[in-house]
Amino acid sequence: MAEEAEAGKRAWVGFDLGGTKMMAVVFDQDLRVLGKKRRKTRSSGGGSVGLDRLAETIELALAESGVTVDQLAGVGAGCPGPLDLQKGIILEAPNLGWKNVPLQEYLAKRFKCPAVICNDVDAGVFGEYSAGVAQGQRSVLGVFPGTGIGGGFVYEGRILRGTRSSCMEVGFLQMATEGGTAGAGPAGTLEGLASRLAISAEAAKAVYRGQAPHLRALAGTDLSRIRSSTLAAAIEQGDEVVEQIVRRAAEQVGRGIGSLINILAPDLVVLGGGLVEALPRLYLDGVREGIRRNALPSLVDQHKLKTAELGDLAGATGAAALIRQHVFPAE
Amino acid sequence: MAEEAEAGKRAWVGFDLGGTKMMAVVFDQDLRVLGKKRRKTRSSGGGSVGLDRLAETIELALAESGVTVDQLAGVGAGCPGPLDLQKGIILEAPNLGWKNVPLQEYLAKRFKCPAVICNDVDAGVFGEYSAGVAQGQRSVLGVFPGTGIGGGFVYEGRILRGTRSSCMEVGFLQMATEGGTAGAGPAGTLEGLASRLAISAEAAKAVYRGQAPHLRALAGTDLSRIRSSTLAAAIEQGDEVVEQIVRRAAEQVGRGIGSLINILAPDLVVLGGGLVEALPRLYLDGVREGIRRNALPSLVDQHKLKTAELGDLAGATGAAALIRQHVFPAE
Repeated sequence: MAEEAEAGKRAWVGFDLGGTKMMAVVFDQDLRVLGKKRRKTRSSGGGSVGLDRLAETIELALAESGVTVDQLAGVGAGCPGPLDLQKGIILEAPNLGWKNVPLQEYLAKRFKCPAVICNDVDAGVFGEYSAGVAQGQRSVLGVFPGTGIGGGFVYEGRILRGTRSSCMEVGFLQMATEGGTAGAGPAGTLEGLASRLAISAEAAKAVYRGQAPHLRALAGTDLSRIRSSTLAAAIEQGDEVVEQIVRRAAEQVGRGIGSLINILAPDLVVLGGGLVEALPRLYLDGVREGIRRNALPSLVDQHKLKTAELGDLAGATGAAALIRQHVFPAE
Repeated sequence: MAEEAEAGKRAWVGFDLGGTKMMAVVFDQDLRVLGKKRRKTRSSGGGSVGLDRLAETIELALAESGVTVDQLAGVGAGCPGPLDLQKGIILEAPNLGWKNVPLQEYLAKRFKCPAVICNDVDAGVFGEYSAGVAQGQRSVLGVFPGTGIGGGFVYEGRILRGTRSSCMEVGFLQMATEGGTAGAGPAGTLEGLASRLAISAEAAKAVYRGQAPHLRALAGTDLSRIRSSTLAAAIEQGDEVVEQIVRRAAEQVGRGIGSLINILAPDLVVLGGGLVEALPRLYLDGVREGIRRNALPSLVDQHKLKTAELGDLAGATGAAALIRQHVFPAE
């Protein structure tokens, strides 16, 4: 009976908290999906985002899985930063209108089980390490170019992190003394030069100059309409300038990864995110070229480059794997 | 009797193999120095550098310490790269005229005890972690600007490394798309822009242009005579242009460290090497300014910046600490 209860306790929730959507996934001990629930982060009523909405999403996923709160061994949540990892607090999440939210404590109390929060990109990389393309690798650098450019590093089975905060802010690698900025940051950072947002801005300029007729038809010059899938469609239809813009950005990301290869000497580099999913071949070719230009020859041969395979499940999977590691450190 | 033998076995040799000098240091279990021997790496006869000369240096240090080979628990050696850490081989050391030298195996056989080799800068940082300024820190980034710019990272008590090779090639961070090169590498790397060699070249240009009269008197335009101590003396005597050159390089190094703070979020950054020792205040001021410009504000507050304190004993100390960790992983 006790054994049964113990076995029953081995369901885990991984939660992925995004600016626009959130997802709760229930996993068994081996990280197989038992059920999941995805919702918009903000309710359609437009009210402020409450912790209740988050907890309800988890409860809906549990219900779909046939798992009761009693059977829950732990909850992990991947969150947009900056975070205080020691205290389990989301310090600030502008997209959510959150400041100093003690999410870890809230989850632990609400679900009466251990809880942990971590950076969302770290969660994605740890997901790929735990159940995706990076299983069994001694050291894995994950880079996820999107609106920003996030990164994570899993070394000998553990997420590399700062004492108080997350790390691997790949987007803030200094690449040049001039060039695009990311928010109020310095010029010439990788994120300022090569994020999806930087690409969209360059592409919008090309539309404005009449160099990208297909993208004009698809999205006009409105940055918020130029998404990864739109870029892919315009390239498919023949907008060569757009292709060059994406390739150049991918090369910049590759140069950044090349610098990181010199620093971290990872066995595997995993690339994920919307741009990579929409344009895998073009993007990887550009990244490879950039790596070749910046990484030391002796280190270039030592890494493999692969695309992520868990898609939008990566974050929840990693968050669940992380709380499982906290509860059972030896496994 | 067995206990005495076991206790007697706890002397360690740390070896620091440099291009011009080498040093063997004998330590007790707590890394207190029992004796040491330093020699030029090449014999004055000018012959090729043999492993015998290296072993003799260790034997001389043992003799000075009153420690016998029987009492030796292990030998660690910090070596110039590139190394094959899995096989314990120095792949290439141009300054020594070495190629594919199986140093680890040689030391183990010659001294009949466990042996390990590691990167020389890693050894220095691990030395500061084990017995110097970085004791007890969860994560330590060490940066040693010299002829090149080396780095090392100690995370939760262990040196971060690649599976086959060393990592933390801080000198090959990409800082700009243009600018100085380091050897045949790409333009704009940190080492190309800001190493002591890059500084000396800029300073020699200033001498040539007549802007640095004191440095002219001290060294002329000969790069190989413009060492850290010469730069310090010229600045002391009033060569403002030289001061600006050093400060600008220190700022570049600070910008590189700022990028690395965004990546690694270290608790402590340790700066060492000849330039830092010769010009501690000027150099640290420059580095601080560079960090402030490149690191994310949320991470700037989380690290401390200190100068190394073990001087030229750091490498041997770290090499001894590393073999001790290999033999007694739990301690």
